[in-house]
Amino acid sequence: MSTVVPPATGRVGMVGGGQLARMTHRAAIDLGVHLEVLAARPDDPAVLAGAPHRIGDHGDLDALLALAGEVDVVTLDHELVPNPHLTELERRGHRVRPAAAAVHLAQDKLHARGELSRRGFPVPAFRGVASGDDVGTFADGHGWPVVVKARSGGYDGRGVWMVHDRPGADEVLAHGGAYLVEARVPIATELAVVTARRPGGERVTYPVVETIQKDGICNELVMPARIPPALADAARELGGQVVQAVDAVGIVAVELFVTDDGELVVNELALRPHNSGHATIEACATSQFANHLRAVLDWPLGDPAMLAPAAAMVNVLGPGDGSDVAGRLPGALAVAGARVHLYRKAARPGRKIGHVTVLADTPDQALATARTAVDRLVTP
Amino acid sequence: MSTVVPPATGRVGMVGGGQLARMTHRAAIDLGVHLEVLAARPDDPAVLAGAPHRIGDHGDLDALLALAGEVDVVTLDHELVPNPHLTELERRGHRVRPAAAAVHLAQDKLHARGELSRRGFPVPAFRGVASGDDVGTFADGHGWPVVVKARSGGYDGRGVWMVHDRPGADEVLAHGGAYLVEARVPIATELAVVTARRPGGERVTYPVVETIQKDGICNELVMPARIPPALADAARELGGQVVQAVDAVGIVAVELFVTDDGELVVNELALRPHNSGHATIEACATSQFANHLRAVLDWPLGDPAMLAPAAAMVNVLGPGDGSDVAGRLPGALAVAGARVHLYRKAARPGRKIGHVTVLADTPDQALATARTAVDRLVTP
Repeated sequence: MSTVVPPATGRVGMVGGGQLARMTHRAAIDLGVHLEVLAARPDDPAVLAGAPHRIGDHGDLDALLALAGEVDVVTLDHELVPNPHLTELERRGHRVRPAAAAVHLAQDKLHARGELSRRGFPVPAFRGVASGDDVGTFADGHGWPVVVKARSGGYDGRGVWMVHDRPGADEVLAHGGAYLVEARVPIATELAVVTARRPGGERVTYPVVETIQKDGICNELVMPARIPPALADAARELGGQVVQAVDAVGIVAVELFVTDDGELVVNELALRPHNSGHATIEACATSQFANHLRAVLDWPLGDPAMLAPAAAMVNVLGPGDGSDVAGRLPGALAVAGARVHLYRKAARPGRKIGHVTVLADTPDQALATARTAVDRLVTP
Repeated sequence: MSTVVPPATGRVGMVGGGQLARMTHRAAIDLGVHLEVLAARPDDPAVLAGAPHRIGDHGDLDALLALAGEVDVVTLDHELVPNPHLTELERRGHRVRPAAAAVHLAQDKLHARGELSRRGFPVPAFRGVASGDDVGTFADGHGWPVVVKARSGGYDGRGVWMVHDRPGADEVLAHGGAYLVEARVPIATELAVVTARRPGGERVTYPVVETIQKDGICNELVMPARIPPALADAARELGGQVVQAVDAVGIVAVELFVTDDGELVVNELALRPHNSGHATIEACATSQFANHLRAVLDWPLGDPAMLAPAAAMVNVLGPGDGSDVAGRLPGALAVAGARVHLYRKAARPGRKIGHVTVLADTPDQALATARTAVDRLVTP
């Protein structure tokens, strides 16, 4: 049988085949975009969703070049690709969005702090440290406790330590690796501001999300954040300015702290679709995944406005007994208004294996309903 | 590398790999459902969207049995599967939803008319005909013109003729095949009522859609229909009752006429996700595709309520010059609020290759915006 496959409207290569690639593939289907994933394993979530893929290592330059050769633009599902590899792709004429220079900000927290500080954005006092002595010297000026962070590789609370004294500092630094220390910020609320930006600078910013942390992991969020409108406007403006300043392309999530005295402080950046933007799938006129594709393809961006007064998202974490949640899905779907997303990841305890989004009249209503549905999924 | 693929939450086999299967696959990704498609060709829209698939003919019982053996339930992207094959699947213990007996209603218009009439639903006067004489006799009682329809195989205006006299009747009947004749109904408005129904009878019905016909093809619709609320309620109730009466499972679209004197008449049934339900993807809390999966898997159904005051959908038809629309997608995305869906079908003139949905405050606003976006896609 002769087959003429009509051309896709755009060809995007994504390094990594996790749930972000899975949900980006879903958005690609709508637009007729061909999303090609470089996946680590044949059971990665994006591969199980049917994304065209090749199996390879994100650290293998040849695998990256092979992907880049098949697509119009290369983008990322995670920040683990060695930055020199991204630079090499660019040197060879491939489009990489966000660019290697911007991705570096998400790969090295000390670099990000320096760049944001140099541009005048509000960040906690910080310093690169090589020893417990360095931490102690910093704490002499800023007071204990301090926050010590691994410069790279940390996520979901890993690689971040609240350190209360010199012995504590010695203990963390003894792990080896590169660190920075930050003054502890008295946090009243944590926010995330998700922006999509095109190469020419056009950008749209979603309504501000309030992230609810537990043990350093964001497992719940509400949208819009339960903060005064003026503060929300300021946060949205700040988030957008950060993205503009660092010349990022695609979706960028800027995590912010609201301090006890109502100041905004920039915490971290993610230069890719982000957990804090998952609710945009149902809650907004254009999802973060659709806008990521549109941004990296340099197409007009979609409206980020909300379709309901409020939304909440709660992550589904693998239950402690390791049981699969699949069999409990019908029970969760019986919760009116629950939009359940399962990533088809094995349900290891504590692992993010899905999320539930709910739209409602208030953030609290949405959150309560989403929690009910998640409870039904994870309770054996 | 050893690979343990976590079990999907449900396994659905769909016969046919067109755009309905493509959009059902998109819904399957959210739920972690495994949708396996029996596709005619490797470039079918669902296959290009990455749905797990096998290539085979919907008329080949062995291919159907192979699909059925891999899944929990078999459902349909189109009505072309021979009914005896569906019956044979059932006889061998496979779940077929909707059941063969219900699918028969969508495969034989004379059978459907008889069943609906027998149950007391309002249908036009009708009769099976084998000759121009039969048509003439019918017209003697009901007046010219009459509507002659092929009993099976017609869609998008094909297989339906407005016949004004005996020579016209002879001409149609000379094509060969099996026909029925119907009294012409003076149509004020055409509606579609989309319902999802589980095996036990639980059902939800979407807000009534107004379909705008041109040359016998529905290429535009608005939701909710621009009709008085009491009439909309009656249409919704009638649509749901039809689905209940014929014991259909899954999504069923019931096409209705509103006559010039405001009566509702049942036109045709589609026992699958339907063009008239595409706007539910963005306009409703649960899409018709998600609810089709939930219904055939016998899971709790999702809320069909609208998220905006109004929506419109306009089909994208292949332009007359055969040009591909892909390159014009960015221009269409520049239309604020346009949700573009492209199915990756070759752009043969007049062929449905995508659709655009718009949410707005009024149906007319939504329709105008959707038309603007479609114009940008199809205008060379």
